[in-house]
Amino acid sequence: MKITLAQLNYHIGNFDGNLSQMKEAIEKAKEDQSDLICFSELSTCGYPPRDFLEFRDFIHQSMNVIQSLCEQSFDIAIVVGAPTVNPEIEGKDLYNSAFFLYGGKVQHIAHKALLPNYDIFDEYRYFEPNKKFKTVEFKGKKIAITICEDIWNLGNNNPMYTIVPMDEMMKENPDFILNLSASPFSATHAKERIEVIRANVLKYKIPMFYCNSFGSQTDVIFDGGSIVMSPDGLTYDEMPFFEKCQRNYDLDQVCEGGKSNELPKEEVSLIYQALVLGIKDYFSKLNLKTALLGLSGGIDSALTCVLATHALGKENIKVLLMPSQYSSEGSVVDARDLAEKLGISYEIIAIEDIFKTYSHVLDPFFSGMPQNITEENIQARIRGMLLMAFSNKFGSILLNTTNKSEMAVGYGTLYGDLCGGLAVLADVYKTQVYELSHYINRNEEIIPQNSISKPPSAELRPGQKDSDSLPDYSILDKILYQYIELEKGPNEIIDQGFDRDIVLRSCRLVNKAEFKRYQSPPVLRVSSKSFGLGRRMPIEGKYLV
Amino acid sequence: MKITLAQLNYHIGNFDGNLSQMKEAIEKAKEDQSDLICFSELSTCGYPPRDFLEFRDFIHQSMNVIQSLCEQSFDIAIVVGAPTVNPEIEGKDLYNSAFFLYGGKVQHIAHKALLPNYDIFDEYRYFEPNKKFKTVEFKGKKIAITICEDIWNLGNNNPMYTIVPMDEMMKENPDFILNLSASPFSATHAKERIEVIRANVLKYKIPMFYCNSFGSQTDVIFDGGSIVMSPDGLTYDEMPFFEKCQRNYDLDQVCEGGKSNELPKEEVSLIYQALVLGIKDYFSKLNLKTALLGLSGGIDSALTCVLATHALGKENIKVLLMPSQYSSEGSVVDARDLAEKLGISYEIIAIEDIFKTYSHVLDPFFSGMPQNITEENIQARIRGMLLMAFSNKFGSILLNTTNKSEMAVGYGTLYGDLCGGLAVLADVYKTQVYELSHYINRNEEIIPQNSISKPPSAELRPGQKDSDSLPDYSILDKILYQYIELEKGPNEIIDQGFDRDIVLRSCRLVNKAEFKRYQSPPVLRVSSKSFGLGRRMPIEGKYLV
Repeated sequence: MKITLAQLNYHIGNFDGNLSQMKEAIEKAKEDQSDLICFSELSTCGYPPRDFLEFRDFIHQSMNVIQSLCEQSFDIAIVVGAPTVNPEIEGKDLYNSAFFLYGGKVQHIAHKALLPNYDIFDEYRYFEPNKKFKTVEFKGKKIAITICEDIWNLGNNNPMYTIVPMDEMMKENPDFILNLSASPFSATHAKERIEVIRANVLKYKIPMFYCNSFGSQTDVIFDGGSIVMSPDGLTYDEMPFFEKCQRNYDLDQVCEGGKSNELPKEEVSLIYQALVLGIKDYFSKLNLKTALLGLSGGIDSALTCVLATHALGKENIKVLLMPSQYSSEGSVVDARDLAEKLGISYEIIAIEDIFKTYSHVLDPFFSGMPQNITEENIQARIRGMLLMAFSNKFGSILLNTTNKSEMAVGYGTLYGDLCGGLAVLADVYKTQVYELSHYINRNEEIIPQNSISKPPSAELRPGQKDSDSLPDYSILDKILYQYIELEKGPNEIIDQGFDRDIVLRSCRLVNKAEFKRYQSPPVLRVSSKSFGLGRRMPIEGKYLV
Repeated sequence: MKITLAQLNYHIGNFDGNLSQMKEAIEKAKEDQSDLICFSELSTCGYPPRDFLEFRDFIHQSMNVIQSLCEQSFDIAIVVGAPTVNPEIEGKDLYNSAFFLYGGKVQHIAHKALLPNYDIFDEYRYFEPNKKFKTVEFKGKKIAITICEDIWNLGNNNPMYTIVPMDEMMKENPDFILNLSASPFSATHAKERIEVIRANVLKYKIPMFYCNSFGSQTDVIFDGGSIVMSPDGLTYDEMPFFEKCQRNYDLDQVCEGGKSNELPKEEVSLIYQALVLGIKDYFSKLNLKTALLGLSGGIDSALTCVLATHALGKENIKVLLMPSQYSSEGSVVDARDLAEKLGISYEIIAIEDIFKTYSHVLDPFFSGMPQNITEENIQARIRGMLLMAFSNKFGSILLNTTNKSEMAVGYGTLYGDLCGGLAVLADVYKTQVYELSHYINRNEEIIPQNSISKPPSAELRPGQKDSDSLPDYSILDKILYQYIELEKGPNEIIDQGFDRDIVLRSCRLVNKAEFKRYQSPPVLRVSSKSFGLGRRMPIEGKYLV
């Protein structure tokens, strides 16, 4: 039996687009004499469709795609993910399902049993978990169809679920496992995934064909990396990350095993690729073309600029250099150097005149009061406004350049440098920003060395440095990782040897900045815990504040 | 047996504050010779604690509150809601529980079985559902302890759950039902709640003591209105909405019934009270005092201003009047009239000079291009920046005045009039803004008649009217209600007789404005479907766009 995996990039609610690329893949698989083609989880409608699932019309349109795919299934079996209506009155209205189409008809519908409802996932919001397990017979083989999370409850220290779907399936002695996934990227996820697949294959002693999607849906990035694993626990094949791929596999050869074809998984390289794809898909799926950003001469905006240029092409990037009276001389030079090196167009707009007009207008009301954060924020907001004016006038989308350390502690101005349609680096800690910059400069200096080596500064008052008001990033980032990614309380962090005052201050800053993050742009997710829908915190919480 | 219900206002993560008000309530109940005092769902830590629940330290602090309450339980039984750790390895880590404390000890822990995971609710994200049901014996009576949603799976057309907790409890023949709730307000919720309680009482033929919390948690408002219902289905007592209340009830008298004490539930009045409480609690829980807003002379800012004044007191409100060259003469007059009538302080700042400076600075880049939305947005953003400058300088919090119709279709400027710490009216359709204004003016003219009767306009270009670019609000609001609250697709809405083009355009506008709402302030929720965490939509979705 020849099995085809199609690793595609789906677009939420774009039923025509999703159908047409699946049809194309089916055509190709037929030409290749394949017996069965497998797509990913919810591939008719894209993943995650979120509350669109609550619209009957949306489900109806997804079912129309299934109907169209049926017509393609006379000579080939098609396995495709789609939501289905739960026929029972009790329970949630939908199932997260996989259709097995063959001979022009729906032969079988398998439902997902383990519904992730943590981090960015909300599947229990929409779906009823499956409780009946059945394999599918096709050309003399029994297939265990599973959907994403279904294979993840295995050998965990702290399992979130009380059932193991494959244990149930095994009662019917399937010949192989198909898994339809929409499994989001994080820097370590591809490694974890391969271990989970291996644990399954070694436990059940049958091969697995795991088909993941790729592409980003605003904040959530899917990395592909679909896998075929033989019963010997060796990776028969691993598809490339972050790109379209379609390959055919001979079941007998996969069963035989003995081949190991794993891809390298260097974290910094994966994060780089994820961010580039995240920018690219954001623009293409929203039917946008050109990006805009402010270049300060610092490392965050320089890195964002390089990523955007790699994603969209130099002809589609425009940058503004907006020096103030507090900008160091080097800032404009460094920013211009980068723009010229990348070959992107830039404009220089001094913000001093506008700042003076604001000061003049506000003077009667603020007279006698000392300058403070107000005046710093005004500068940041003037820059935000100028960028938005260019954005509105030329139809370019503003990219936000805030990093995760700043976003965590609220070191940024709401409606100022926190503006933007997409926050490119807000899941990348400052220390990782340096790593990524070195990675980009590994062959030649693209990001000016000066932007990398100078002390970080917002340059909003004379001689200002980030280190005036924040702990050193090499300490801060470690504390933030414990608090944000690992959800450790302050005492647990202090017990690891960190300074008590710094820990308490850092955690408090994170909690107090919740109101800023609530209004910040969507963040490209590259860690296991990113700001946004994956981290839901009360604004009014008193905990640790 | 004397039973006390304590309807209190909890603060998320404020363990000391929550404990001290519960202790005070217990003292009072002891003075009143009560046998049992009942608090609300998750009263140790406040509801909804969201991802704080994932911090072991947070759960530990909540358990310390339970420990302290135990020491108060020698002469009185205390029923209190708190998260508990699930001792099983498999399944979610926590239960949403109710502790029964007596004689200085934990006598019983009941877990919630029905975990809401829709709209603003995410309980399945944290909690394992209860599967074992047991009543508590106390002074010769058997008590069925239920938590919020546990009593809601009854008589629904489309039940979300497959079990009915009270059916299980009834196997032990309880004498009465206790329900600990944190049940959020919406305009029609108090009516629905009383019918659900009635359905339970009539089905099981035992009384129910239903204890709800009150107070807001940023966007979510809890309305109190705790209920004691006799087995005859009559409302023995209904506590006031939106305020602290503690009352004692004699179980025998409640069982006897025959009394009907329901409160009036006029929607416009409830929404008014909810919004006032929402503003008040936002400030008090964040330890803030003074509010700031821009007064345009229009009805939305006028209504917001009145609500804020009622919530915080006239001495704590400051308004800015920021006319431009396009402002009508009446606008400043109407705004000033309102400020003077309310006795609040106001400043007038013309934005023309700043606008001219921007134009001058941008002219070299925009020359030859026609004026468009860019220049309109610049004006809105100058106003946002001036308000934020006052906010920063004086420590006042900016209130956002956008209404739900505008927020739905994206009729507002990001980083301009969409600025603010809290969106007061963004769950109130424009047609409801008029209703609320008439309600406020029912005895005397507080909101100037002129603000109510003039055609809505953003006044960002000469002669601009909302109706130039939007359908009439009386039509638009009906379509939006079908699409947002009822989640009807466009064809279903058109089938009701609405114009096809207007429906399609309206739905498209809603979907296209997702990126703006993503960065908008938290919205006080007064409907069954508010913008924010209760409505989760993809930004890149292609559906209907």
